[in-house]
Amino acid sequence: MMSNWQYQTPGIPDDRFIRDEIPMTKEEVRAVTIAKLRLQEDSIICDIGAGTGSLTVESALQANQGRVYAIERQTTGVELITKNIAQFDLPNVEVISGSAPASLREIPDVDRVVIGGSGGQLKEILQEVDQKLKPAGRVVINAITLDTLATARAELEKLNYELGICNVAITRTKEVGDYQMLQGMNPVYIIWGEKRC
Amino acid sequence: MMSNWQYQTPGIPDDRFIRDEIPMTKEEVRAVTIAKLRLQEDSIICDIGAGTGSLTVESALQANQGRVYAIERQTTGVELITKNIAQFDLPNVEVISGSAPASLREIPDVDRVVIGGSGGQLKEILQEVDQKLKPAGRVVINAITLDTLATARAELEKLNYELGICNVAITRTKEVGDYQMLQGMNPVYIIWGEKRC
Amino acid sequence: MMSNWQYQTPGIPDDRFIRDEIPMTKEEVRAVTIAKLRLQEDSIICDIGAGTGSLTVESALQANQGRVYAIERQTTGVELITKNIAQFDLPNVEVISGSAPASLREIPDVDRVVIGGSGGQLKEILQEVDQKLKPAGRVVINAITLDTLATARAELEKLNYELGICNVAITRTKEVGDYQMLQGMNPVYIIWGEKRC
Amino acid sequence: MMSNWQYQTPGIPDDRFIRDEIPMTKEEVRAVTIAKLRLQEDSIICDIGAGTGSLTVESALQANQGRVYAIERQTTGVELITKNIAQFDLPNVEVISGSAPASLREIPDVDRVVIGGSGGQLKEILQEVDQKLKPAGRVVINAITLDTLATARAELEKLNYELGICNVAITRTKEVGDYQMLQGMNPVYIIWGEKRC
Repeated sequence: MMSNWQYQTPGIPDDRFIRDEIPMTKEEVRAVTIAKLRLQEDSIICDIGAGTGSLTVESALQANQGRVYAIERQTTGVELITKNIAQFDLPNVEVISGSAPASLREIPDVDRVVIGGSGGQLKEILQEVDQKLKPAGRVVINAITLDTLATARAELEKLNYELGICNVAITRTKEVGDYQMLQGMNPVYIIWGEKRC
Repeated sequence: MMSNWQYQTPGIPDDRFIRDEIPMTKEEVRAVTIAKLRLQEDSIICDIGAGTGSLTVESALQANQGRVYAIERQTTGVELITKNIAQFDLPNVEVISGSAPASLREIPDVDRVVIGGSGGQLKEILQEVDQKLKPAGRVVINAITLDTLATARAELEKLNYELGICNVAITRTKEVGDYQMLQGMNPVYIIWGEKRC
Repeated sequence: MMSNWQYQTPGIPDDRFIRDEIPMTKEEVRAVTIAKLRLQEDSIICDIGAGTGSLTVESALQANQGRVYAIERQTTGVELITKNIAQFDLPNVEVISGSAPASLREIPDVDRVVIGGSGGQLKEILQEVDQKLKPAGRVVINAITLDTLATARAELEKLNYELGICNVAITRTKEVGDYQMLQGMNPVYIIWGEKRC
Repeated sequence: MMSNWQYQTPGIPDDRFIRDEIPMTKEEVRAVTIAKLRLQEDSIICDIGAGTGSLTVESALQANQGRVYAIERQTTGVELITKNIAQFDLPNVEVISGSAPASLREIPDVDRVVIGGSGGQLKEILQEVDQKLKPAGRVVINAITLDTLATARAELEKLNYELGICNVAITRTKEVGDYQMLQGMNPVYIIWGEKRC
């Protein structure tokens, strides 16, 4: 089977993914998230709260000699991820139907963790992530609420990680007749932490 | 010589570049720009108004089996690009000291064009780009003024390219004592056009 | 009848207006728009493309010794404005069912013009506005498309008005359970021009 | 003495204030802040961390039959506020050289509180504000750090106030030659709380 994405670069257009009604990280935000993740060809990655699997797909394409563990607790999510993996023809992904932090214990140590959803367990998840993350490893959290932002920051500070935060506010234009209308996307905070060696 | 960037993914931190006083496309905006450019390993790319060469470097790393032509009219820019190419150990870049559109005529046909600066000649540049761009090729323009935005859009519409526009507004936080202070970066419009086959 | 707004300050909450399905300028954007309009108690104002009448109401409250002419071409709009005027108990508004620029000719000279909608006639409207506007008068345009932004700017420059532009991007938070979720509103460009004396 | 502002509406241009090097709330953010404050002609207001006094001036102009208590702990701030009050010819302001929460105890009960700066004492200040604020009173906090945002929200929730939050991101354009260059201002969170009756 042929992948439906022929390019080297992340930021795959939203409409290339099967997504049903599940909210998905928008392509421009994914591009910045992957940038903050800093992947290598052989990176071992865990995607927590993988949702539609859009970040799983992006990560697996970048780390095509590595491996991605996609943890998702909702059955509809697990099905979507599985479909998207098939569609992008990715042999290096393992989908785990379960919840973090518990499911984190089933996987080997990782170089990178990306967290798209945490089901209210972000604090516990980050503590477990710290166990799994190799030295100089990175964790990147996408926050669409002020609460996730605050918890992510507080926990990463507590863990003594090197911390960075940015907010990405994308406006797209939509063609309406001959006009280009401004459409504000929901802003996303991206928080990253690097484990000190 | 060893490159100072070990990763697969674009969005290289600003501080990895030598930049003197020249304004540089910020890392988050570069990540989105490269996403809109959609590169392949063997893409042939032209970077117009290359400035510090940050987009040249990002492109050359992605298209490591391809080639990047970096056109820059200012001597200080040419020197900076050359230094940055050396620092990232890139064998696949050719720096052209000159102005677009004239210098565009010296290079072969390309798959991609990225325009960071146009010296007030954007209209003429895009007309010449249309000559050099292969079918299904893409041109991506970063605009920090309303004028560049308007000209880019108008010319791409005139050339009957498929058009897309987004605005990227990044807020970073800066640690001041125990506080994380919000710092708004200048927003950038990214305009992309795809040449119809 | 008692007005449903007891305060001196503009930026009336959106939910105080009857609005049906018609899009309305959000309260935070209205606050900035009214600021750029710079009203006095006795200002004579024209609101073009008045829509729900939210800017008409705000202007009439500020200029309670003055007068607001609200021009709206759609019947549903005219009805909404009339209802909102009644609800805020405003004796100093005249609703004109008609299109600008034609309807502008029916009103006396004005100190201020605010344009929320222009039905594709912005160029002609601004030329007529120039006839009606007193020296040192101000016109403020709210643009939700790049086209309105470009036309507003070009025409005001042609008329030799002193020009200002800002973009207002509001993010609200919405309570979802215990969480505050970020919600990006559509950004609006506000363009203002002051007629030289 | 004649005031240097003849208008009814808030959002006074930044350059009308004497400000030295002290950072000042920008005019567009002031317009939204004053909107969230919801002032009446006879409101009694306290401005905490008044800085240059720009919000003091805006409040005093709106509540011209009321009174503004401006608390500022830095001597240079107190001098600036005094100069700006004189320049806008405001008889209804009392400047208090001191720190909140202590200085709050010197003033009578108030209808409104606006907090521009809190010197790391926001929690204690909000507890004292709750003592001074009349039922249905409002407090509005401008936050330029994530910390102030988090503390403001947490304390207002603890006090069982009705809570609202928005982020205001203004981009101005700056004329550079014939170009309008985009300039991102630092975004500001505005948090408001209304004391239940």
